[in-house]
Amino acid sequence: MSELFIGIDLGGTNIKIGCFDSEIKLISKSSSPTNADMGPGVVIDKMAAMIERLLSGAGVSMGNIQAVGVGSPGPARYKEGIITAATNMPKFRNVPIRQMLNAKLGIPVILENDANAACWGEYVLGAGKGVGDMVFFTLGTGIGAGIISDGKLLRGEAGNAAELGHMIIYPNGRVCNCGQRGCAEAYASANSTAKRATEAIEAGEQSSLAKALEQNGQITSQDVYEHLKAGDDLAKKITDVTAEVLAILCVNALHATEPRRIVFAGGMSAAGDELLNRIKDYFDEHLWSLQSEAVEICFAALGEDAGIIGAAAMAREVQ
Amino acid sequence: MSELFIGIDLGGTNIKIGCFDSEIKLISKSSSPTNADMGPGVVIDKMAAMIERLLSGAGVSMGNIQAVGVGSPGPARYKEGIITAATNMPKFRNVPIRQMLNAKLGIPVILENDANAACWGEYVLGAGKGVGDMVFFTLGTGIGAGIISDGKLLRGEAGNAAELGHMIIYPNGRVCNCGQRGCAEAYASANSTAKRATEAIEAGEQSSLAKALEQNGQITSQDVYEHLKAGDDLAKKITDVTAEVLAILCVNALHATEPRRIVFAGGMSAAGDELLNRIKDYFDEHLWSLQSEAVEICFAALGEDAGIIGAAAMAREVQ
Repeated sequence: MSELFIGIDLGGTNIKIGCFDSEIKLISKSSSPTNADMGPGVVIDKMAAMIERLLSGAGVSMGNIQAVGVGSPGPARYKEGIITAATNMPKFRNVPIRQMLNAKLGIPVILENDANAACWGEYVLGAGKGVGDMVFFTLGTGIGAGIISDGKLLRGEAGNAAELGHMIIYPNGRVCNCGQRGCAEAYASANSTAKRATEAIEAGEQSSLAKALEQNGQITSQDVYEHLKAGDDLAKKITDVTAEVLAILCVNALHATEPRRIVFAGGMSAAGDELLNRIKDYFDEHLWSLQSEAVEICFAALGEDAGIIGAAAMAREVQ
Repeated sequence: MSELFIGIDLGGTNIKIGCFDSEIKLISKSSSPTNADMGPGVVIDKMAAMIERLLSGAGVSMGNIQAVGVGSPGPARYKEGIITAATNMPKFRNVPIRQMLNAKLGIPVILENDANAACWGEYVLGAGKGVGDMVFFTLGTGIGAGIISDGKLLRGEAGNAAELGHMIIYPNGRVCNCGQRGCAEAYASANSTAKRATEAIEAGEQSSLAKALEQNGQITSQDVYEHLKAGDDLAKKITDVTAEVLAILCVNALHATEPRRIVFAGGMSAAGDELLNRIKDYFDEHLWSLQSEAVEICFAALGEDAGIIGAAAMAREVQ
């Protein structure tokens, strides 16, 4: 028990914390609402308290912890450990979270993009194991992404590389939350998939999803995938666009960094192989004929723990 | 003179060879038609003869050469030193050029993608000097590209990364030579720019370029840029599409690897600042508003020697 690592997944909704051994095997984990509207001071106090509770529950002393890894949404100045403007936490503006948490715990802290952390987790212990070059997509509110190039996380000039969901695929297409038009994210994130379904129903298209919209006041991507499985035509049409956009994103990612494996995580796994196979079909349809490509497209393996696993594995990395 | 390096730029039309000192300062260079249709054996004999002539002319002995770098068009298995299917050299199929040249010269040989070699040259000694993250585009028959990430060339799983010109920007758009539809290359390479102008004139559009087409039987991108400068409306419209596609390509490249500098080389420099400024305008128009970006878009600095400079600098790298 002498060398342990903490991985934190700081989300707009929940904080997840895990304590891991030096092989990044989980010892204990916990989760709690972020309450981001209370401001960064309260949230950071809470993270420190969660760590203490977790360790004492597991019978581990703080002295055994070598480092803490925090995955948080961007944009941020990750290398400096500062969250600049997290989209889902409006009160987090220029928060030097690395320094603040380090001052509380007296342990080295590293800050990393949340998608990068999950990507690193999948690379080290999940669906990317054994390959040197990988691209990772996680579909939620937006499309998070991570790139592993020659065994290393590709970070870019200021740590904001791998924003692949904001590649423009339909110039002058749908408006994205980022201010661009035609981003992959504006079509194929979980939220955008649900939003396109809602828009279609509101425009008068027939669908079994109309009832879900009426009953719940909203449609989620899970609803779309459920009605897809039940044979609804609109759900099929909506999912098909998601699959085609993700396939084109895969083509573009392949031509950018030539991964051996492209890994999908997040809400879309609920759609299962039906969606994954559709992505593969569209990928083959859009891909060049110049040479055959060895890249594999698959689902992630670690589930919801990828974030804390990856954050802990990154904390181990800097040791 | 004890440590010298040879850089070779093997093109479909010409072979260029340069001898450099350990600071990659040019000592002597030469150029000769490739005659690729004579087949790889003849071409490789010729390369070896060119090197010997170059060295004897410069009063340098073969014993001073530490390594030879060869930049060649892909696709290839670069890590293995094998040209698999160079697009403009149909007789070059599975040619183990590294091994063949090494057997002739008795000196270590490395094989690299031609655009990667030029990218590395610009990074080490040209427009990318002093930055850690850079993207390079060279506009000719196609769009060659290179990516520097954290001071290293990004090669991908099999050495075919950075085929950024084949990012799909208009799904189901123009057919590209690679077999895909809507690649940036199908709109914005030098050849595609000229081709779009030719198509427009053949479709009946009025332009001063019509005369050039009639006189020469073809239009080049240089023609388009000359007529742009003379105020021709069609040339302006054609160049504008080139600029917009390149700008979107820059947005996508930024979101992929977050370069600090994006460098353009090749035929388009003939269009000068008029085209470059148009690219920058479209870039600002298409780019997100989420945060401001520090990336600079500029022309390459080394001109036509970038290929041999980069190949020699890569040969030095592996020493």
